[in-house]
Amino acid sequence: MATPTDGGAAALPTYDDVVRAADRIEGHAVRTPLLESSLLNRAVGGRLLVKAENLQKTGSFKFRGAYNNIAALSEGVRAGGVVAYSSGNHAQAVAAAAALFGVPALIVMPKDAPAPKLANTRAYGAETVLYDRYSESREEIAQEIAAERRATIVPPYDHPMTIAGQGTIGLEIAAQCAADGIVPDAVLVCCGGGGLVAGIALALERPFPKVPIYAVEPEGFDDTARSLETGVRQTNAPEARSICDALLSPSPGELTFEINRRRLTGALRVSDDQALEAMAAAFAHLRIVAEPGGAVAIAAVLSGTFPLDGRTVVAVCSGGNVEPGLFSQALERL
Amino acid sequence: MATPTDGGAAALPTYDDVVRAADRIEGHAVRTPLLESSLLNRAVGGRLLVKAENLQKTGSFKFRGAYNNIAALSEGVRAGGVVAYSSGNHAQAVAAAAALFGVPALIVMPKDAPAPKLANTRAYGAETVLYDRYSESREEIAQEIAAERRATIVPPYDHPMTIAGQGTIGLEIAAQCAADGIVPDAVLVCCGGGGLVAGIALALERPFPKVPIYAVEPEGFDDTARSLETGVRQTNAPEARSICDALLSPSPGELTFEINRRRLTGALRVSDDQALEAMAAAFAHLRIVAEPGGAVAIAAVLSGTFPLDGRTVVAVCSGGNVEPGLFSQALERL
Repeated sequence: MATPTDGGAAALPTYDDVVRAADRIEGHAVRTPLLESSLLNRAVGGRLLVKAENLQKTGSFKFRGAYNNIAALSEGVRAGGVVAYSSGNHAQAVAAAAALFGVPALIVMPKDAPAPKLANTRAYGAETVLYDRYSESREEIAQEIAAERRATIVPPYDHPMTIAGQGTIGLEIAAQCAADGIVPDAVLVCCGGGGLVAGIALALERPFPKVPIYAVEPEGFDDTARSLETGVRQTNAPEARSICDALLSPSPGELTFEINRRRLTGALRVSDDQALEAMAAAFAHLRIVAEPGGAVAIAAVLSGTFPLDGRTVVAVCSGGNVEPGLFSQALERL
Repeated sequence: MATPTDGGAAALPTYDDVVRAADRIEGHAVRTPLLESSLLNRAVGGRLLVKAENLQKTGSFKFRGAYNNIAALSEGVRAGGVVAYSSGNHAQAVAAAAALFGVPALIVMPKDAPAPKLANTRAYGAETVLYDRYSESREEIAQEIAAERRATIVPPYDHPMTIAGQGTIGLEIAAQCAADGIVPDAVLVCCGGGGLVAGIALALERPFPKVPIYAVEPEGFDDTARSLETGVRQTNAPEARSICDALLSPSPGELTFEINRRRLTGALRVSDDQALEAMAAAFAHLRIVAEPGGAVAIAAVLSGTFPLDGRTVVAVCSGGNVEPGLFSQALERL
């Protein structure tokens, strides 16, 4: 059950790992569309292509990394089952991927996780263990259970196979741009622990080696921005709060930061209010459901934080698991 | 400016017309994904594949027919511009398609059309002429203007090129099913004037010649159902009302009914309430924005009107242009 999160000694994943991940998820993950709206383009003064990863199975990109991770295990190891910790998207992704392989999954989730996310994780067939997020360590609980059961931990971002799986989005972006004769001027990616943006950066190394790639974070959770600025992994203040519940990891991963510090051009910050505005615009112009954390890359463009000035930019919409009440609140802005 | 709606003498479109339409729209229309949710599948006791045509340019399938229609005109005729009548999705589709060809578009719209639909039609660059839907004939106004300007009318459903354009959805459904090794047991399609279901029926003639195809209509606007039952085109009662504003045409088209009476297995009726339930389910499980009329095919499955009993069914989600307030109202069901 040793995983790279334990020691950090694991090798960094490469472009070839992303290609192998794409082979593994083929036919199992959705090849999500690259959407745009001519009216939205006019509003932002450029071309905004949205990779609609909210349409992925389980409603977020996390399915790719979870599936790749479990698929890469040897059959014997996989049969022992998997364990993960997550309050939301990764939980559902691991539960659904494990169900496809017919192996048991146990997810350590906070007692106060949103009810639908708990219910969905269980509906996919996973066992759940609840913990108190203010007094207990989810990693320790997960490691103890995994050791007892001889099960394998599927880390949410800091693992080569997780990163490679998320990177398959980058391969699809490259292929979809090539098919339409598009050379993007920049790629903006929602960022929590940094696995998604790291994977996409790996995937774009060959097709678009010079394209600037930016992480986009919620204000108060700008650990990757500050880590890139200082060159050392930074941690978010414990009192920070944001409605972008998918992006609240405390600091960049070891592996993800190692990739991101080499490859990213920078990181951008958006407010909760800008995320809500982006959710409303995605509803009206693209007819997709984005969750707050899934909308931050779009928000960076719409808010003018990243002005287009005639450029063509790909923004990843990373997830769409949002409470109906919060979604309706976003729509009040229209 | 003579069009088949004038006389009804036009030849019926064929499978080959749909294939030619697919060539014309290639690279211009979105190849929309076929989405599913394992949790939704479990809830309906079968496999529900949703063709997410709400993700099409301008937010509905209408873009395909409008684009194909305008693309099929000779260059000289096209340069004279196009005229259409519509209160919503077809208006935006013709406006956007004409803009891509750089030709003028004029859309005859009711004075009381929803403000965002009027605004979007104008934003795509079309001129709009307003009429009173209770005292004036939109067809007559459109024909007068088209004659004056020597412009061409792009009919919303009863035209071979419109039907063939909508049929490209059927070719995509067939290819997407084949890629995943799926043989659908039935195909359910939202139905107003019947152009969408007629086009899809043509497209499926070769790949799935025996698949049962059903039109799905809102209660009170079951003109296609009653026309299929009686063998003669029926009209809806003028006092009928529904929130499915995209499906309120008064009767089946001549061409569309000629195709549909030969090819459809039947027609199903759903209530406005069932459409709202389907919008909520599509939000929660597929993370897409469906408008009421766009959700009726999904509603037929979710409501049990069309029980799956273990079968695999494709339901087309035909559009996603919905007022935020109405959408929030649908979400209150979750």
